Amino acid sequence: MTDNKRFLLRRRPEGAPVETDFELVSDAIPAPPAGGFVLHNHFASLDPAQRGWMDDAPSYMPPIALDDPVRATTVGQVHASDHPDYAPGDWVMGLNAIEEYSVVVPDGFTAKVDVSAVDSPSRFLSAFGAVGLTAYFGLLEVAKPQPGETVLVSGAAGAVGSVVGQIAKIHGCRTVGIAGGPDKCARLVERYGYDAAVDYRGKSAEQLADAIREVTPDGANIVFENVGGTVFDAELMNLAKHARIVLCGLISEYNSETKHGARNLWQVLAQEATLHGYLISAYVDRFAEGGAQMAKWIASGEVVMDEDIQHGIDNAYPAFMRLFSGANTGKLILALD
Amino acid sequence: MTDNKRFLLRRRPEGAPVETDFELVSDAIPAPPAGGFVLHNHFASLDPAQRGWMDDAPSYMPPIALDDPVRATTVGQVHASDHPDYAPGDWVMGLNAIEEYSVVVPDGFTAKVDVSAVDSPSRFLSAFGAVGLTAYFGLLEVAKPQPGETVLVSGAAGAVGSVVGQIAKIHGCRTVGIAGGPDKCARLVERYGYDAAVDYRGKSAEQLADAIREVTPDGANIVFENVGGTVFDAELMNLAKHARIVLCGLISEYNSETKHGARNLWQVLAQEATLHGYLISAYVDRFAEGGAQMAKWIASGEVVMDEDIQHGIDNAYPAFMRLFSGANTGKLILALD
Repeated sequence: MTDNKRFLLRRRPEGAPVETDFELVSDAIPAPPAGGFVLHNHFASLDPAQRGWMDDAPSYMPPIALDDPVRATTVGQVHASDHPDYAPGDWVMGLNAIEEYSVVVPDGFTAKVDVSAVDSPSRFLSAFGAVGLTAYFGLLEVAKPQPGETVLVSGAAGAVGSVVGQIAKIHGCRTVGIAGGPDKCARLVERYGYDAAVDYRGKSAEQLADAIREVTPDGANIVFENVGGTVFDAELMNLAKHARIVLCGLISEYNSETKHGARNLWQVLAQEATLHGYLISAYVDRFAEGGAQMAKWIASGEVVMDEDIQHGIDNAYPAFMRLFSGANTGKLILALD
Repeated sequence: MTDNKRFLLRRRPEGAPVETDFELVSDAIPAPPAGGFVLHNHFASLDPAQRGWMDDAPSYMPPIALDDPVRATTVGQVHASDHPDYAPGDWVMGLNAIEEYSVVVPDGFTAKVDVSAVDSPSRFLSAFGAVGLTAYFGLLEVAKPQPGETVLVSGAAGAVGSVVGQIAKIHGCRTVGIAGGPDKCARLVERYGYDAAVDYRGKSAEQLADAIREVTPDGANIVFENVGGTVFDAELMNLAKHARIVLCGLISEYNSETKHGARNLWQVLAQEATLHGYLISAYVDRFAEGGAQMAKWIASGEVVMDEDIQHGIDNAYPAFMRLFSGANTGKLILALD
């Protein structure tokens, strides 16, 4: 391989991204920079957050610059290096981009990983990566679940939601998951151990609120929110007093130019609930601790984390769009090699 | 006076209350109940929360029953008693109703008050009542302001907002108030010591967000929310990282059948903000402590709290509606005698 295929952002999407917002180009494989290295990316993480990075709006990170490749967490092997700590062949993960080769000057997101203990290096983008830890720290440190509490999770069949439910069960909670369609709902109960599943498809916010109430008559003590929109509206009508809401993601909003927001905000007031805006970046300095616990649970089988691996950088656009159609089950990852 | 005029809820309002949702009736003055007393109400508090109590919706208190008088905090004198601790002539405040005479069996809201130290018993519905303490505990205990922080307040010329700004200044904060119209905005700066005032009238959410940004370039560390709607949307575009939002009231929503909610909810996520649903009832057991501090500040002139006193139970409907037109400046109170 002598060229470097790269998936560039050419235009800021208006609403749902279209294929022509991006362009796949072939550049020469770069040389390592002074004090850095070139990483041959094997896997790239596809995450809802990337949609936000494509907008030119105030957020927690600068937007992806036009004509830059789409920012992504990747895992791969050092191809060539000018850094004493990174030798060719070393496995590394970091915040790079959807491209076959990335120029890396190590920063806080760069970490060497030991692939000998895992069945696939992609695990570092799922169970041992930011996604598994998003579930871990969001539930345990932000929501602080107590045994016997009810935890309501949206996007419950997704990468984060499936793990939130399992960790909540380990902590003695009752879990109720919301997902789209009967197959995903069956999966919630059978594979992720949810006590109850609610299908949001074909329901108004009011109908969904009623369906949640049927299986959550005393209200949710914790809401772990990945979706937003009418799903969140329905959840808000089912809060227990002093509920804690972890606002982790709003995937239903990312492609909308008019924001739906939280229509039933008044319930936060009436139930004296607390809503926490949560980014995993707040816990980067505790990744080793969380990763060690996740590794134990994965090894013992107490937590399963599924991966939905799509192949080839040529498929970057349709693979990414699986996030928004709800087609993916488990962590969506693009295999580049 | 031999009759008891009472302001009854006859029909649940749809949207903005209309006069025919209520009826003023004259009943006989009741006899004291066993273990209770009859209170001659001198002043009744008119609060946005009363609008919520008129709806048959899940909330922190049961709705006002149809054909009951409109629930209100009142202050008055014992008229006749069958309770050893309450003698005729004693001044008492409590959660009663808009009526000249209330039957009271003392509960957690009932308290004898010493009117000798105040210029008007109405003070127990403003500075020393739940409203002054809503500002006090909401700012100091929920938001926990630090010197040098910026506190953004909506409804800043209102009963709660005007006091929030003054307490924030005492604690070394910079204060920015939002109100409707140039007169109220001038009052914010001149009378309540706000560092800056922003007029929301005639502005879209986006224009208001820009106007707030001009005087709050680094964002608000604390948002004290009394209004909701597009005002809240604009505030959310001006959060500092890790902002704390005290959700105290949503007066712009109470008459709407379709809820506007928080359209820019995603900013809570992007700025890792926390939103606290706040009811003063959580602090009832600390009213003595808060009231003592408020009394000191009022006596020293460090805090001023204005009252907008409307007269006569016959005026209960138009007086109540002043809350929603924004006509009131300061705490709205109905004098019944």
